[in-house]
Amino acid sequence: MIKAGIVGISGYSGMTTLDLLLKHPEVRVTYVSANNTTGKVTDIWPQFKGKIRLMCQKFDLKKAVELCDVIFLAVPHTISMELAPALLKAGKKVIDLSGDYRLSNARDYKKWYGSAHKDCHNLKKSVYGLPELYREDIKKAKLIANPGCYPTAAILALAPLTAIYSELIQSVIIDAKSGVSGAGRKASVMFNYCEVNENFKAYKVFNHQHVPEMELILSKISRMPVAINFVPHLLPVNRGILETIYVQLNDKISLVDIHKIYERFYKTEPFARILAAGQQPELKNVTHTNYCDIGIDIHAGKKLLVITSVIDNLVKGAAGQAVQNMNIMEGFKEEEGLL
Amino acid sequence: MIKAGIVGISGYSGMTTLDLLLKHPEVRVTYVSANNTTGKVTDIWPQFKGKIRLMCQKFDLKKAVELCDVIFLAVPHTISMELAPALLKAGKKVIDLSGDYRLSNARDYKKWYGSAHKDCHNLKKSVYGLPELYREDIKKAKLIANPGCYPTAAILALAPLTAIYSELIQSVIIDAKSGVSGAGRKASVMFNYCEVNENFKAYKVFNHQHVPEMELILSKISRMPVAINFVPHLLPVNRGILETIYVQLNDKISLVDIHKIYERFYKTEPFARILAAGQQPELKNVTHTNYCDIGIDIHAGKKLLVITSVIDNLVKGAAGQAVQNMNIMEGFKEEEGLL
Amino acid sequence: MIKAGIVGISGYSGMTTLDLLLKHPEVRVTYVSANNTTGKVTDIWPQFKGKIRLMCQKFDLKKAVELCDVIFLAVPHTISMELAPALLKAGKKVIDLSGDYRLSNARDYKKWYGSAHKDCHNLKKSVYGLPELYREDIKKAKLIANPGCYPTAAILALAPLTAIYSELIQSVIIDAKSGVSGAGRKASVMFNYCEVNENFKAYKVFNHQHVPEMELILSKISRMPVAINFVPHLLPVNRGILETIYVQLNDKISLVDIHKIYERFYKTEPFARILAAGQQPELKNVTHTNYCDIGIDIHAGKKLLVITSVIDNLVKGAAGQAVQNMNIMEGFKEEEGLL
Amino acid sequence: MIKAGIVGISGYSGMTTLDLLLKHPEVRVTYVSANNTTGKVTDIWPQFKGKIRLMCQKFDLKKAVELCDVIFLAVPHTISMELAPALLKAGKKVIDLSGDYRLSNARDYKKWYGSAHKDCHNLKKSVYGLPELYREDIKKAKLIANPGCYPTAAILALAPLTAIYSELIQSVIIDAKSGVSGAGRKASVMFNYCEVNENFKAYKVFNHQHVPEMELILSKISRMPVAINFVPHLLPVNRGILETIYVQLNDKISLVDIHKIYERFYKTEPFARILAAGQQPELKNVTHTNYCDIGIDIHAGKKLLVITSVIDNLVKGAAGQAVQNMNIMEGFKEEEGLL
Repeated sequence: MIKAGIVGISGYSGMTTLDLLLKHPEVRVTYVSANNTTGKVTDIWPQFKGKIRLMCQKFDLKKAVELCDVIFLAVPHTISMELAPALLKAGKKVIDLSGDYRLSNARDYKKWYGSAHKDCHNLKKSVYGLPELYREDIKKAKLIANPGCYPTAAILALAPLTAIYSELIQSVIIDAKSGVSGAGRKASVMFNYCEVNENFKAYKVFNHQHVPEMELILSKISRMPVAINFVPHLLPVNRGILETIYVQLNDKISLVDIHKIYERFYKTEPFARILAAGQQPELKNVTHTNYCDIGIDIHAGKKLLVITSVIDNLVKGAAGQAVQNMNIMEGFKEEEGLL
Repeated sequence: MIKAGIVGISGYSGMTTLDLLLKHPEVRVTYVSANNTTGKVTDIWPQFKGKIRLMCQKFDLKKAVELCDVIFLAVPHTISMELAPALLKAGKKVIDLSGDYRLSNARDYKKWYGSAHKDCHNLKKSVYGLPELYREDIKKAKLIANPGCYPTAAILALAPLTAIYSELIQSVIIDAKSGVSGAGRKASVMFNYCEVNENFKAYKVFNHQHVPEMELILSKISRMPVAINFVPHLLPVNRGILETIYVQLNDKISLVDIHKIYERFYKTEPFARILAAGQQPELKNVTHTNYCDIGIDIHAGKKLLVITSVIDNLVKGAAGQAVQNMNIMEGFKEEEGLL
Repeated sequence: MIKAGIVGISGYSGMTTLDLLLKHPEVRVTYVSANNTTGKVTDIWPQFKGKIRLMCQKFDLKKAVELCDVIFLAVPHTISMELAPALLKAGKKVIDLSGDYRLSNARDYKKWYGSAHKDCHNLKKSVYGLPELYREDIKKAKLIANPGCYPTAAILALAPLTAIYSELIQSVIIDAKSGVSGAGRKASVMFNYCEVNENFKAYKVFNHQHVPEMELILSKISRMPVAINFVPHLLPVNRGILETIYVQLNDKISLVDIHKIYERFYKTEPFARILAAGQQPELKNVTHTNYCDIGIDIHAGKKLLVITSVIDNLVKGAAGQAVQNMNIMEGFKEEEGLL
Repeated sequence: MIKAGIVGISGYSGMTTLDLLLKHPEVRVTYVSANNTTGKVTDIWPQFKGKIRLMCQKFDLKKAVELCDVIFLAVPHTISMELAPALLKAGKKVIDLSGDYRLSNARDYKKWYGSAHKDCHNLKKSVYGLPELYREDIKKAKLIANPGCYPTAAILALAPLTAIYSELIQSVIIDAKSGVSGAGRKASVMFNYCEVNENFKAYKVFNHQHVPEMELILSKISRMPVAINFVPHLLPVNRGILETIYVQLNDKISLVDIHKIYERFYKTEPFARILAAGQQPELKNVTHTNYCDIGIDIHAGKKLLVITSVIDNLVKGAAGQAVQNMNIMEGFKEEEGLL
């Protein structure tokens, strides 16, 4: 049994991390904290009544170090880079669910997140926690940059193509739709029920902070620059992301061939499922699970490939992937607590 | 053509009032204000783009008086009683959508709304704006206390019985369910999409500030005290209230007889519709309309009457009823702008 | 490891049973059938892709008997009583999720379900599968009548009162609200998205087939007849039931006292949670779980008790309770697979 | 006053047509029919109670001809081409909301709708009822092919570009999202509440029957072939379509310039609204209205234009546009009954 702590328990990612860890046979949650709320965790999240007696406190480094082996940072960006250095120094493993350690350099961070990076030292050493691509690095990692929700769905959908046939890619458009929990849990008229329900809209057109993360990883895999045109939309559901990805190809390829490449690429992966050629994934088949379902279709005449990818933004897009990373780091069965 | 002003345009009731008045052939909206937002109304409510060029300003008494014949106060309670006195003094007609002028005495106001009443003078002179009961008084009124959303559905559902057979009533339980717009438009985690969607709960059990309003009016009609046991619930829809009203009777009455009483009571009313005996009303038949649909059923053996009542909380429960009151006050056709 | 079969896999209850059993360490699902759909289960329910290779067949008694130790009947009423006798005769344990074995006599069945009962023999021997009340009987049972969703929430909410203070009860009104999955999975305009979304209505007023089931069990517990006035409503959510239960009392009792009785009654129960006095339960705290959360409030002056009870209709109201019953019958840990 | 008939009153388009015509000062609805339902219209659509006494009948040519000046066909495709010829022959004006008269030749109809066309004579004479492009033809038309919902949003969004700068267009991808009423009102598990709510998916990828309609009209406007890559998705809302349209350009153009072109193109149009450059349209600003809101943004570096277009599929995408066409045909004010 290892001892785990969750910083940021009052948000949806922190809550989902707790929910998953409570079902995990190898983990005991020993510490939780939040910045604006203290008291019983069951007062913040009554669904845990009868399951835990944890008290939520303001973050306290000494206690966190004393009580935990591994710490999940489920806090807004800019907070993680304030907390991680000391935790790492104290020899703890850190899994950061924020965007603070995902980009490779401080300049890009400043550009997309609007703040100077305060921990360039660890930024260089962090491992991008997408197990399907970086499992071996994750095994040895001390600091995991847990991928963003949009990038998880996008990179898994594009990885086989970029890794094997990057020269085929002429341009990529991602039309993404995310459930509302992706925006976090904050008081804002913009996310009030009546503003979102029976509504739909695009936002941050070509301008979302997850773009450089996708481009960075996909460019690494393909060993050439991959540019992403990304338009996210706000979907009136609690959970789930669907991305419809249009790849204009330089050359013809058959649906059968491209489908085979995808099936092979993820053959042994426990959480990436390739649907039959032409079949479309649906949110409801992955919500409350750690799966990413991927559908592939092609408009042969126009050399236009359409890859559709769905995940639960709180599970494979956040807490589930964080637990998957922990399992790999700790040598547990990778699916433990996630099926 | 009369000139109308709306104070509190950034809320749902103010917006709905504007929407209705724009379709009204006898009214021109000449003034709108809000406290925290200024600028083009179409920046707050883009749905009006192309229809209006109104600018929203902080409330200014002089301008309101200068530009308007009638003023709709769609502001939170305690604000109306600060604005109404001067407007009335200046000879303007005021239709107040808040709770400030609905109760008959300042003591009850203090008890249920938590603040001392600042305008007892006009509190006594206000007319309760439920046309089905007080049409004659409304015709002559200068200050309308526009009924609350829950009381509108409740009083219309109980008025025939209390007016004609009050001695039959042993006890009344109202199990009410309201859409989220009833809570207004404010930044609050509690009303965030993910907290309300796929959720349902009771709140303010026996303790809602609309209770004394129902009891006051129903007691007046029945000429004896009527006590209401009221439990509201938050329904995951944008608009609409359904109240399931259980009346324990002192004596037997047949469904046919009670149904006849209701049909007769509302025979000439344009906006109260009595369904066939045993038929149940649905929200979707009244949303975006000024109708109140009422269903009647009975458990004869148990002398238990069930009256179900539905309205759109923003229309018959707020802005639509306000416009209906204006029509009556101004001598317009009562349905004008509402069908 | 025991071998389990599910008859009626194409419905929501059958699917949820499968979902729970797949996570259960002591059970292997060896047989599934449906009447109108055959082929891979993952073609009916793609969320199970990668987890199972089961084929769905038309029901075949011989195969079911050969392959299973325990059989879950997740079929519409009238079908169970056709299948159960032979399965029982073959020595199999049967957990019936339909209404076929819940009432105590064939006359009531005919009256409320509209068909003659075809298996009076086993009707007498079935055990009502509500563990909080009948755990000892369930241990020895061969045929479980798994409780209805509405009765589960109602009986758990009323059991402490009826068991201990039945003389206090003057009358009971249950205002129930159920998510749409309670209606099953069938082609019907009535349950089309556009007919249910942004809508709300009552149905089967005083006339729901779950009423005799509630009255039967509550009367048994209280050793006197308990009559239930029951009005269900269709709630625009996928899952979850909330019942607001109004009990008119014959005498005064304090909130503190009644709350204590409830806490004591369910003190050792793993799935019944009594909230703090005056606190209201919410659907979202129990959906996707086997919990029943119960809130208690009182209007002391009026001797009116309000008990609110929430469950997930597919879990504690169907499949979860069925698995809980199986755990008890098989001597497994009662919470196994359910936390 | 003209006399109007609606064939297909039991569907959502027929109902919305009735709703709009009831508010229209120049029209009296004198005839309604449906194939599977007869009796009072208010039994099918209780929201009209108190407003109409119309009886719904099986379609009867003689009656329709006798009672109506103009007839709205709100029926499934293949039915319209059976009814229209006789109505036209009798000198009636016909506005067909189905797809039967939208394509220019019977071959394409057979390919995309799967049936042979039975009325090639009128197919050639029908006028495509998109007022923003064909107002003059509509004035003189006897048979209107009312545009499909997806094509309305797509063509209005692309018309300025294709009409003025078609040589700029390299390729067009339309990622469309439609509310559930777009699927019509039929008994089908696929559109049951629980299957659609909290779900999202693509369907008919590159294969929707509205594609040839878009390509036909846009090619006409641009005087060169325009190919559309179209992927529709099912959105969990009752009403509304949002299309995110990606146009890969052959050359650079500034956002300011392209925005000016759009503003000018629709300068005098009552129902097409161009938002400020970079601003995104939302469903909720157009639902229950006849507006089409269009947002324009550009990724200058990548020569990638993004046009987003929203309409209410039942209003501007069906019944509202049909009424707009009627207004033009009859010489009424074009906005009559639509604001």
